Amino acid sequence: MVKACMSSLYAACLISSAVLNLFFILNLYAGADWKLSWSRKAAAEAEAVAAITCSGHGRAYLDGLLLNEEEPVCECNTCYAGPDCSEFLPGCAADADSGDPLFLEPFWMQHAASSALVVAGWHRMSYGFSDSTTMSKELERHIRKLHYVVGNAVTKGRYIVFGAGSTQLLNAAVRVLSPDNSSSPARVVASVPYYPVVNFKFEGDASLWKNTSDPNVNLIEFVTSPNNPDGQMNKAVLNGAPNSKAIYDRAYYWPHYSAIPTPADEELMIFTISKVTGHAGSRFGWAIIKDKAVYERMIEYTGLNTMGVSRDAQLRALKLLKVVLEGGGREMFKFGYETMRDRWEKLRETLSISKRFSLQKIEPQHCNFFQKAREPSPAYAWLKCEREEDRDCSAVLKAANITGREGQMFSAEDRYIPWSRFRVRKGHNKWKIMAHFAVYVQSVKEWEVVD
Amino acid sequence: MVKACMSSLYAACLISSAVLNLFFILNLYAGADWKLSWSRKAAAEAEAVAAITCSGHGRAYLDGLLLNEEEPVCECNTCYAGPDCSEFLPGCAADADSGDPLFLEPFWMQHAASSALVVAGWHRMSYGFSDSTTMSKELERHIRKLHYVVGNAVTKGRYIVFGAGSTQLLNAAVRVLSPDNSSSPARVVASVPYYPVVNFKFEGDASLWKNTSDPNVNLIEFVTSPNNPDGQMNKAVLNGAPNSKAIYDRAYYWPHYSAIPTPADEELMIFTISKVTGHAGSRFGWAIIKDKAVYERMIEYTGLNTMGVSRDAQLRALKLLKVVLEGGGREMFKFGYETMRDRWEKLRETLSISKRFSLQKIEPQHCNFFQKAREPSPAYAWLKCEREEDRDCSAVLKAANITGREGQMFSAEDRYIPWSRFRVRKGHNKWKIMAHFAVYVQSVKEWEVVD
Repeated sequence: MVKACMSSLYAACLISSAVLNLFFILNLYAGADWKLSWSRKAAAEAEAVAAITCSGHGRAYLDGLLLNEEEPVCECNTCYAGPDCSEFLPGCAADADSGDPLFLEPFWMQHAASSALVVAGWHRMSYGFSDSTTMSKELERHIRKLHYVVGNAVTKGRYIVFGAGSTQLLNAAVRVLSPDNSSSPARVVASVPYYPVVNFKFEGDASLWKNTSDPNVNLIEFVTSPNNPDGQMNKAVLNGAPNSKAIYDRAYYWPHYSAIPTPADEELMIFTISKVTGHAGSRFGWAIIKDKAVYERMIEYTGLNTMGVSRDAQLRALKLLKVVLEGGGREMFKFGYETMRDRWEKLRETLSISKRFSLQKIEPQHCNFFQKAREPSPAYAWLKCEREEDRDCSAVLKAANITGREGQMFSAEDRYIPWSRFRVRKGHNKWKIMAHFAVYVQSVKEWEVVD
Repeated sequence: MVKACMSSLYAACLISSAVLNLFFILNLYAGADWKLSWSRKAAAEAEAVAAITCSGHGRAYLDGLLLNEEEPVCECNTCYAGPDCSEFLPGCAADADSGDPLFLEPFWMQHAASSALVVAGWHRMSYGFSDSTTMSKELERHIRKLHYVVGNAVTKGRYIVFGAGSTQLLNAAVRVLSPDNSSSPARVVASVPYYPVVNFKFEGDASLWKNTSDPNVNLIEFVTSPNNPDGQMNKAVLNGAPNSKAIYDRAYYWPHYSAIPTPADEELMIFTISKVTGHAGSRFGWAIIKDKAVYERMIEYTGLNTMGVSRDAQLRALKLLKVVLEGGGREMFKFGYETMRDRWEKLRETLSISKRFSLQKIEPQHCNFFQKAREPSPAYAWLKCEREEDRDCSAVLKAANITGREGQMFSAEDRYIPWSRFRVRKGHNKWKIMAHFAVYVQSVKEWEVVD
């Protein structure tokens, strides 16, 4: 062998050892023949925790509480209890609130191998990446690719800023778009109904400010499109008005929830991984920005606020987006769309037996991503109590043991309530809500007949 | 066997299947006999990337840039280049700035197995933990345990808030401690020299405000203790003054950098994992707070700002703290202390051959953690140019091809410069700084003789 190397393979032997090493490593890796060493213990630990089934009504986590300081405790879904979550709590109220995007959890459990992530103890200890920024260029590249594949946003020639979820980015955008030297910050407005972003005092319905001519009034319009809670494809109503700027919250502009007729291309758009992959806990979002000065000030804000986004969250987001992009993203979006569509259909059918309740109207629409017309599958239902006397719709639902927010919180009448389609796990109590609610609506219908 | 079970082992067989399952799982895990399934591919991927050596002058990362969209690229240490970081760039300046705590990287590479982390694709997707907070109780428990073991802070009866690094917590604390209904926010002061926390406009040396009697002036005093850059154990100078509140930045109060004479017990103390384990990139810190109302407002601020800290960063911090706590924390702190002490000693020796430069004085002190007297090992040197004409110390060092910040940036004279002891890796150019600097000081000494 040494002889052979010295003669005919002479040239090959001269290949630098670094290249050879890389080849060797990648070859082993590609073949999945890698003999694990330092990662083995952590892998076994994670698989052991994942194997705790919690009776299908809960989940155990690596960072969960421990029993006797060693056994991970099951964290039970709402309405379940006991060490293995096997006890159903009768009479437990069903929660129609919460934007927890757990409907995507089954997808990730089905893709356990491709979505698993191993973090070495010395991974990215520095404040900065090698280019001295706090943003992973590889992650940015995947975000641009995702938008290109889905066709939901223009990123070419646009700047991207990372944030700790859309929350930090909304804060950053309001600060950056407010006038520099004004003692009064810009007023934040939105079209009713709107989700109450808790940080800001809303100054009422955007349309009321349409004809303001006071040059000292600076307006920032939040446009959530598709809208939370009613799913409408909102547009800025103050568009073009002097002293007004728009922030587009595009969190729900994904094929799970909406047809994708055309790539969005607003001045400042905000996305969050919470509503794409369902990882709300990771606190990762991004803004797509046209104006360079605005981009630079957003970078400055997130730098001063938190020195950028946790590199651990960035690494996780990258791993998840890689899985999403496999096969052109069709698999996850199909799963998400079908899940949300089925839930919408079930709710619609249930309500159709009575005139007491109604839902927002959403027409089937052609989707460029799926390349066909699609049925409605909004993230939230915007339920209306139709009877004159049912002014407080949440009280009506409370009688059916369903709790929700009041319409008032969305600056609308209390005759409306938002109905989250998100926080549903197999074994979660919401699987029971529909049956529960169906019985209730049925009884209401009987009353109507009797009345 | 079944027979035996039916008779003498009858009772044991009745143990609930959940408990048996758990026992089975934990037993397998403890025995490291777990046959890996879904985590295997990710583990192999991480080990393959970690095996890329980059000639010992760089690092490859899972989220690094890729060559031909598949091979991870080496990210070279300063002053090295080339695909495998083997090219030394002659004449490259040595950077004495930067607080990157890379001196702890070798510790984590030596503890690869215990510090590795495997994250399942469905880990903590929710906004909240099972108690509806955004904080891992298990992580909080480990933080309290760490302070107890090290003896550097009182946590009993105190509240803990997590933040995205100490940066977010400093922002939160300033906001929370500012008066509610005042049009002018509180003025931030600190004792010279102080690290320029970029978010705040400092209103000069704290001692200048000692005798202010204006009841409309609200002061917030930043106390970094041990101080950055001079390592002194600062105390609030406005302590007890009306309308003044202190925020103690305790980032460097760990056995790496300082003797631990007594547990710190101030009203509001801030710590960060960056300076404990060296993971600056994770963006994880915590505040220890006495007052419940302040705690609640800090929770509110971090909630509105970013909806708490990334659960991925929390999971990583937990894993790292578990490793630190193994064997009572002695191993990591010993490694950290010895590394910093050796670097200090080397710098001190080099400078001792000339009178042109001096360092701050730090006396050996008894440390309750190590239970003995310890030598100085500060995080930064506070280098002074002693010659009358060397008013600009950074210019003097620049002649030796060493770049640093100016003393002015720390509100001190430019005759001082801070010298970071942190950002040194094996193969990093700073290993060469000392030799380089020694030659320079030597030449300076010769000038002195000739002069």
